[in-house]
Amino acid sequence: MSAERRKVSADAGVNFALARLRDGEDGRPGSTSEVLRAVNDLEREVKARGVKRKTLNDLSIAEAYREVVDREGGEIAAAIEQVMLAVARSVMRGDGFEYTLPSRGATDQVYVEALDRIVLKNKTTRAAFGTVSSVRKVTILTRVMQLVHGVLSRGIHVTKRDLFYTDVKLFRDQKDSDAVLDDISCMLGCTRNSLHVVASEKGVVVGRLQYKEDGDEIDCTKMGVGGKAIPSNIDKITDMRTDAKFVLLVEKDAAFMRLAEDRFYNKYPCIIITAKGQPDVATRLFLSKVKRDLKIPVLALVDADPYGLKIISVYMQGSKNMAFDSANLTTPDIKWLGVRPSDLDKFKIPEQCRLDMSAKDIETGQHMLNEDFVKQNPEWVKEINIMLETKTKAEIQALSAYGFQYLTKVYLPLKLAEGDWI
Amino acid sequence: MSAERRKVSADAGVNFALARLRDGEDGRPGSTSEVLRAVNDLEREVKARGVKRKTLNDLSIAEAYREVVDREGGEIAAAIEQVMLAVARSVMRGDGFEYTLPSRGATDQVYVEALDRIVLKNKTTRAAFGTVSSVRKVTILTRVMQLVHGVLSRGIHVTKRDLFYTDVKLFRDQKDSDAVLDDISCMLGCTRNSLHVVASEKGVVVGRLQYKEDGDEIDCTKMGVGGKAIPSNIDKITDMRTDAKFVLLVEKDAAFMRLAEDRFYNKYPCIIITAKGQPDVATRLFLSKVKRDLKIPVLALVDADPYGLKIISVYMQGSKNMAFDSANLTTPDIKWLGVRPSDLDKFKIPEQCRLDMSAKDIETGQHMLNEDFVKQNPEWVKEINIMLETKTKAEIQALSAYGFQYLTKVYLPLKLAEGDWI
Repeated sequence: MSAERRKVSADAGVNFALARLRDGEDGRPGSTSEVLRAVNDLEREVKARGVKRKTLNDLSIAEAYREVVDREGGEIAAAIEQVMLAVARSVMRGDGFEYTLPSRGATDQVYVEALDRIVLKNKTTRAAFGTVSSVRKVTILTRVMQLVHGVLSRGIHVTKRDLFYTDVKLFRDQKDSDAVLDDISCMLGCTRNSLHVVASEKGVVVGRLQYKEDGDEIDCTKMGVGGKAIPSNIDKITDMRTDAKFVLLVEKDAAFMRLAEDRFYNKYPCIIITAKGQPDVATRLFLSKVKRDLKIPVLALVDADPYGLKIISVYMQGSKNMAFDSANLTTPDIKWLGVRPSDLDKFKIPEQCRLDMSAKDIETGQHMLNEDFVKQNPEWVKEINIMLETKTKAEIQALSAYGFQYLTKVYLPLKLAEGDWI
Repeated sequence: MSAERRKVSADAGVNFALARLRDGEDGRPGSTSEVLRAVNDLEREVKARGVKRKTLNDLSIAEAYREVVDREGGEIAAAIEQVMLAVARSVMRGDGFEYTLPSRGATDQVYVEALDRIVLKNKTTRAAFGTVSSVRKVTILTRVMQLVHGVLSRGIHVTKRDLFYTDVKLFRDQKDSDAVLDDISCMLGCTRNSLHVVASEKGVVVGRLQYKEDGDEIDCTKMGVGGKAIPSNIDKITDMRTDAKFVLLVEKDAAFMRLAEDRFYNKYPCIIITAKGQPDVATRLFLSKVKRDLKIPVLALVDADPYGLKIISVYMQGSKNMAFDSANLTTPDIKWLGVRPSDLDKFKIPEQCRLDMSAKDIETGQHMLNEDFVKQNPEWVKEINIMLETKTKAEIQALSAYGFQYLTKVYLPLKLAEGDWI
């Protein structure tokens, strides 16, 4: 196809789409309410189904597996005191100083289909102060519990780096103090977030969402074009309210900027969230809380490549290392809105905006086909197969080939109107 | 020194500092007003001096050098039309299609001491469509000007990546479309920001600052613990107001989080800004605007290593590639508050929290000694020499050795009270 002809057919496609979507009085085809019809159906479905996640108790398998829950700071401080009292009693009995720790190795991580997430087997190991191989670990565990106890007592939050620096001589490497945090979470049955040790955050939110953050009233419709930075201490967020019909989860900040500047959420009531690439823990916790508290569907806008899908999977499934915390960190049932491999032809994305997949891309794509959460969804399998057959990928930005506002004015409204998510 | 003794002397230091700083009625030593006395002096000095930056015109050297200014979108669109009309006239005269472009090579970049920044020599080169070596560049220039004209006409902002994707076939590599943006800025005498092509942003702000962002009223005292994301389109920010006495510019998000959670700005009226590491263009523009509009001092809190200083230098000096835009991107006269190499002994930072400098660190430190902006400040030279002699460095987090809130409750108040910045 010549560049000229491609240009003409592309324009025709845009015009056709625009005609379908032009504004009109309420009820006329193309109005906001028309576009949102499919979204409304999905929202009702999500609300009806509820988002109460099944727990190990619901399945009566709490004995066999292990998960953690969010717990109050005061409760955790008391739990730490109990652990230390038990240790003291053991020492006085003459049984020595030891902890009983949950096993967290790869063979202890199991995907439970009924939960649709990975949990830990309920297996434990012992770490004794009197054994050469575990004396250092027990010492570090004890010191970190002491530090966490102090943090909780003062009601503040700290980073892993802060923790490391309070006793560099003992910890030596930050990896050593980081590692025991997960042990402590598992042992106390609480999320890492409950320990008030937080990771740095990079997520941003904008749109139809109001909440309280550490007492401040935050209105995300009035956050200009830059949006509100998502805090790393998620437990300071309370009282979420919305009139949004859906969450638009965006992979990249360029697309986020376009949506924020065009105030996409004014016309199509939604909450727009991005972690600017690989999702960090704070953004994952935030999304999970939004979905749990507000019970609205989550639609993902990612690049049409294996990494876009990988990002959805991190939000949905979490990482295996944090299997014990998967109920809090993950958001089930995210719909893949786009940009999907099949969109490239559907929206006539010009050849030169499509990129060849590298050998590594193809390998990652093939690996995705074996993931449990992909196998469950035949439509996802179909899309990945298209990607692998055509060996092409594309970024969200490829839509700019039709104009910078094609994303907000044409692509997304059309997708929403057609209920075109899988 | 034994761990026990070190602990004791450290506690003594903390107690001594705390005693000096404990709260009291107004006027009693240690009260907020006492702590802020030195800051008030500095603030008055900054306000009196004014922050009107010297321009090339002030020095009557506008003929010899070149700088760019912020200009309105409409003005730039008109300027692009003028450039194209001139080209058309040249073609009609039979002189062919060519642009006159400012030279931007390394030899064209000069540090002007009276300005304290780098500017471009007023030299030009010609790029003709009729010459094989420049036909591609002229084509790309023309296409990008057309795209920018479209962006300006619609009053929107786009990213470089968006721009690239509108004509992948022509640009082939994003480097090629990025490069001509700077040519266009120079040619039109405007900042890149005026072209409405923006970079992604990662900065966050919190504290005693109010402003309007795209019409929304933003109050940075009510941004919870996560803060407000700094937008990439700085020209949407207007009407800045403050009762802050200073800006606290923070290198890392861990320290930012501590300051935000402790609401440091409530007790010590300030604006807290971080770019979370290497400063991005949006954060640099934001800081520069804060300083220009509000005329308050900027105090930097960075790691005690060569990269901490490098970060201050990027805020103050900008990068050489963007020499033509240095007046808008840079913030003169940033004070180095800490953590300085001399602080390590002054605050008795434990040995195990100090890190050995690598060969590369030492090389970077030695390189800093040759930088113009360092040489001007003998106290900075002294600090760098301490760093190079002791061959040790430390992070802001090293202060956590005395407790997680040592930074906000002791270190910073003491620094401010003593006016200990250079």
